[in-house]
Amino acid sequence: MAPTVAAEAAAAKGQLQHTGKAVGLAAHDASGHLAPLTITRRSTGDDDVAIKILFCGMCHSDLHSIKNEWGNAMYPMVPGHEIAGVVTEVGKNVTRFNPGDRVGVGCMVNSCQSCDGCAEGFENTCGGGIIFTYNSVDRDGTVTYGGYSSSVTVHERFVVRFPDGMPLDRGAPLLCAGITVYSPMKYHGLNKPGKHVGVLGLGGLGHVAVKLAKAAFGMKVTVISTSPGKKQEAMDRLGADAFVVSKDAEEMKAAASTMDGIINTVSANIPLAPFMSLLKPNGKMIMVGLPTKALEIPPFDLIMGNKTLAGSCIGGMRDTQEMLDVAAKHGVTADIELVDADYVNTAMERLAKADVRYRFVIDIGNTLKNADQ
Amino acid sequence: MAPTVAAEAAAAKGQLQHTGKAVGLAAHDASGHLAPLTITRRSTGDDDVAIKILFCGMCHSDLHSIKNEWGNAMYPMVPGHEIAGVVTEVGKNVTRFNPGDRVGVGCMVNSCQSCDGCAEGFENTCGGGIIFTYNSVDRDGTVTYGGYSSSVTVHERFVVRFPDGMPLDRGAPLLCAGITVYSPMKYHGLNKPGKHVGVLGLGGLGHVAVKLAKAAFGMKVTVISTSPGKKQEAMDRLGADAFVVSKDAEEMKAAASTMDGIINTVSANIPLAPFMSLLKPNGKMIMVGLPTKALEIPPFDLIMGNKTLAGSCIGGMRDTQEMLDVAAKHGVTADIELVDADYVNTAMERLAKADVRYRFVIDIGNTLKNADQ
Repeated sequence: MAPTVAAEAAAAKGQLQHTGKAVGLAAHDASGHLAPLTITRRSTGDDDVAIKILFCGMCHSDLHSIKNEWGNAMYPMVPGHEIAGVVTEVGKNVTRFNPGDRVGVGCMVNSCQSCDGCAEGFENTCGGGIIFTYNSVDRDGTVTYGGYSSSVTVHERFVVRFPDGMPLDRGAPLLCAGITVYSPMKYHGLNKPGKHVGVLGLGGLGHVAVKLAKAAFGMKVTVISTSPGKKQEAMDRLGADAFVVSKDAEEMKAAASTMDGIINTVSANIPLAPFMSLLKPNGKMIMVGLPTKALEIPPFDLIMGNKTLAGSCIGGMRDTQEMLDVAAKHGVTADIELVDADYVNTAMERLAKADVRYRFVIDIGNTLKNADQ
Repeated sequence: MAPTVAAEAAAAKGQLQHTGKAVGLAAHDASGHLAPLTITRRSTGDDDVAIKILFCGMCHSDLHSIKNEWGNAMYPMVPGHEIAGVVTEVGKNVTRFNPGDRVGVGCMVNSCQSCDGCAEGFENTCGGGIIFTYNSVDRDGTVTYGGYSSSVTVHERFVVRFPDGMPLDRGAPLLCAGITVYSPMKYHGLNKPGKHVGVLGLGGLGHVAVKLAKAAFGMKVTVISTSPGKKQEAMDRLGADAFVVSKDAEEMKAAASTMDGIINTVSANIPLAPFMSLLKPNGKMIMVGLPTKALEIPPFDLIMGNKTLAGSCIGGMRDTQEMLDVAAKHGVTADIELVDADYVNTAMERLAKADVRYRFVIDIGNTLKNADQ
């Protein structure tokens, strides 16, 4: 019996009941203010892994979502999709995990598991529709709650193993930020020594992109940023080869037609044309940030030089495990600021101002208190 | 001595003098009205092929250009970049052609011939800048005049051979329309049986795209058009497998997520989002038409499903010869309406209304009279 069918049958029989108590940090409206809320997690199904959450990264998507900036919010909303923790229980069909294992959950907790995309390991392009880790209606009809919470129960397929030596706190952000930049580098053929990649925006995704591109792939990396103040850090500490201040016309001109690809991590609404000019012929700009407005691009800027504007949505589960293993091998982790659970609203305010280098991670295990307390 | 250097040296010595008399149909202002004009063509240089023009296709770009709709017009302008004719003279370094050969010239007549793109056969992405067949400043400083004229002299590299059995009149439009759709099919991996390509817009480029995709590559082809009246012809005569009326919401919905790629030949300013929804995950929309306004695309439509919006500018010279050979092998030619030279202004008016199936070709050899007559 296929896992999907088993899960559906179990749900139909009421075996996947949501009876486990947990505490989450929930937004109740578009103010985005987060407050503790008692939630329920389902009992551990045959294919499920129950996880005690220890850390959860704060992605810029969380901020967009709790404030309903994408217009699809379902409240109450418990955000968080950079989850790291320890297995507490596994269902009888689970083969890859045991209690005590150090594991992670990223942006997805389910998919149709039967389309071509899923069959090929690309659950991130599931034709049946991705079930996101929060603010998504799961296949059993319940709304998913994310990792700003004490525990989560997830189908084995959507759980990855933390390799030895990969810390849970600094590794958690890789589950979103890491795979989101790793996957397009791999599938757009940039992951080779000698390739020159631009990283547009040096935030949560951007700083991981620089590290992976340099340490794991040996690419030439140029950071493109509005902030001259980030230059020294980008080059000396993150290892970038060059830095272009995007507001400096001379620097932009000098970098014209030099890049094989650009990983565009910016989720603000910025013009694309100036950055397309940095690409060589056949160069590719890959959007991994999600601006709220339509992208605009003059057709000449795309057609002259056979350039590409592509979108890339996270990555498949097999690639997510591969990315974690590659990152561990090369010592790549996120730069984080570890915060207590009761700091989360302040952290969101700072995130809105890009005042973090480079990722807030909530110390769930030590600081998230029971909602009833 | 490299051809480029030879040409430059020759120009410097005055050997490439523009002394040959020819007659062209020229626009003198943004009205776009075409009238005979005596022009000069350069003497045949060591690497040059002199061509008596017999036919020239009328591309929609010609219309944009003579009316200065792209804002870059240089008047007087002799348009035309779908040139077919016969060699009259060759320079001493020319190895591939002899007088009497049936040849063609497409959108380019020069490039730097030394950059990586040129070295790899992709003169169409030349880093030094393509010299277009008309309205372009050539490397010797002269403005290029196109194929609505009695003769042209072109560097051997930018001349292709008409294969046996390929008629000059019906083959001429392939030099632009054919290579422009052939190249992206090849380089975006669509040119395989089993792939499903959408052809957006059934005009000069679109009808050739359908024929090449079916006859040469064995793809499944769906024509997407605003005109229900084109359905029978698209399917019965051009060989398309399916036809979607883009204004019909039901038909669009039924075709959602079915296509590996779309060749977008539309140069009008249309919204892209509805057509992105027709693509499968990882699907690619390739722009080959040149709208005058910026393309707009909501980021979700690009990112969800890892989709791509790419531009493609004609194709390299090696690929142009390959395309002609493939077309000849499979009996693919353009559907044309052959017109006299003195009909050209009327033809332009009809072209503006898309009132042609599918390409006007001017019978230069028989009908273009001397400007002085």
